[in-house]
Amino acid sequence: MASSSNPSSGSGRQPSPARPLVAILGCGLIGQSWAALFLHHGLDVAAWDPDRSTVEAMPERLVPLMAQLRELGDTQPGTFRPARSLADAVRTACWVQENAPEKVPVKAALYAEVEATAPPGAIIASSTSSLTWTELSAGMADPARLVTAHPFNPPHLMPLVEIYAANDAVRGRAVAFYEALGRKTVTLRKDATGHIANRLASALWREAVYIVAEGIADVPEVDAALVHGPGLRWSIIGAHMAYHLGGGPGGMRHYLDHLGPSQERRWSTLGTPRLTPEVQAMLVEGIEREVDGRSINELEAERDRAIIHALRARQEAP
Amino acid sequence: MASSSNPSSGSGRQPSPARPLVAILGCGLIGQSWAALFLHHGLDVAAWDPDRSTVEAMPERLVPLMAQLRELGDTQPGTFRPARSLADAVRTACWVQENAPEKVPVKAALYAEVEATAPPGAIIASSTSSLTWTELSAGMADPARLVTAHPFNPPHLMPLVEIYAANDAVRGRAVAFYEALGRKTVTLRKDATGHIANRLASALWREAVYIVAEGIADVPEVDAALVHGPGLRWSIIGAHMAYHLGGGPGGMRHYLDHLGPSQERRWSTLGTPRLTPEVQAMLVEGIEREVDGRSINELEAERDRAIIHALRARQEAP
Repeated sequence: MASSSNPSSGSGRQPSPARPLVAILGCGLIGQSWAALFLHHGLDVAAWDPDRSTVEAMPERLVPLMAQLRELGDTQPGTFRPARSLADAVRTACWVQENAPEKVPVKAALYAEVEATAPPGAIIASSTSSLTWTELSAGMADPARLVTAHPFNPPHLMPLVEIYAANDAVRGRAVAFYEALGRKTVTLRKDATGHIANRLASALWREAVYIVAEGIADVPEVDAALVHGPGLRWSIIGAHMAYHLGGGPGGMRHYLDHLGPSQERRWSTLGTPRLTPEVQAMLVEGIEREVDGRSINELEAERDRAIIHALRARQEAP
Repeated sequence: MASSSNPSSGSGRQPSPARPLVAILGCGLIGQSWAALFLHHGLDVAAWDPDRSTVEAMPERLVPLMAQLRELGDTQPGTFRPARSLADAVRTACWVQENAPEKVPVKAALYAEVEATAPPGAIIASSTSSLTWTELSAGMADPARLVTAHPFNPPHLMPLVEIYAANDAVRGRAVAFYEALGRKTVTLRKDATGHIANRLASALWREAVYIVAEGIADVPEVDAALVHGPGLRWSIIGAHMAYHLGGGPGGMRHYLDHLGPSQERRWSTLGTPRLTPEVQAMLVEGIEREVDGRSINELEAERDRAIIHALRARQEAP
């Protein structure tokens, strides 16, 4: 068995047995995207998936993702290795990024195998979007090794990683690990379903669906209003900061003093739509008009181009 | 009385009596910002406010706003005239942009005076954020002349204008008017409090407050998650489109078929916080940490610089 990697040796641009190795468990879209990001930043990657063909397809699938990342900065990439088994992937890993299906027993079984085969210091980071750290760590021999590290799709481009771990040191290691990859981390104080971003996205979409269901505006108009209004603003300042600036010279305190009661009234007028067949039909009809014949692949390519463009603008910002 | 302006003569870069004149009623932040945008696009502007000193301060206040707009494109600006009275402002106007306080009787009194003194073809456009067309038009001699045209703050920079009018032709004129100023208009099918964007913003902020109130994350973390995650995405694609892409090859239809029921469960876990004194204190304490000593003016200047930067990136996008 090879010697375990040394997480403290982060300097190496030269391939060497001591260079930090990241294991990717689950090679779907999220796993591929993580792999591209890790490789781009000079980390070596070993990838495993129960579906062997997915692992074998990885090198080809990584090509366009790595090309996108090169638009954001040139690097000396790490090396990629398809693993023959989970144990083969994690045996010398210092970091294990798990992207398995969103089912507690499936992930728990993987963690048991990782705990049995990975170096004792290796961290297990779950990309879970809908499960909690509490659920996922329940069956582990050493729950302190688990961190939830939820990326925003597509992870190789979107900066956000949401972090939760019960153990302070592990949380700190996770923040340092992802920030070194150019990610923007936010740390939760308390374990929560949907972390922060998906809770916000879910709340906004509920109202977006209500507006369509009530016939106030159609899908394309709701999306355009978001992109050219609050979306643009929220790519620059957060919602709390927007209300701080909405309060004038007195800021948030003034806003709450003067508009707090009317804000609660406004909240009470927001909708709680049901996804009835009629509402679903309105959403599908509306999105088809907005999509206007473009395939999912074309739409994703357009989105990714625009994200890269926005990220380059952020890099160049004064 | 001077001859009424001719709205069809949009060609003139030369000052001339026939050049379209826009009247600004209410010269606070929104009125100033609209005035800068209109002037930048070569329209002549006459401005009135019941507070005479506000009108007199306008020329100086317009200087930095016009400078920001020049960063987005050079133009031959229109001319600015402080008006002595409401009638003096609107007498030859083809467009009246009303930015009075958000009180129906205040606005209704202005509309009565505009109807008595403006050219018969002049449109009255209300910047109202929280009142409806139905409330505002109720007392008018000719309600068909009113359109709600809600900008997103700051209006000279943010592209979105949300439009509602009962009359199709007036709605069409409003769309053409604001699009000619480089705005992105969205038209509501039905009059609604908060239009689209403020309903979405209110829904998102409710959950953002809940996350803080529950101790899941603090104000700065919630804002950072938004800016580096969903905010960045929503500056590029809308929420409906994001769920379409979240559905994989089957798009929105597949998403709704497979995740509709779990989506309704997720919605049911979203919060309905109250703005209790304790929650208000958490919000104020958190925003103060995020603000980190910067004044409202400094924060607004940073925001505006970043918006200009993002808009320039959009202009240059492939």
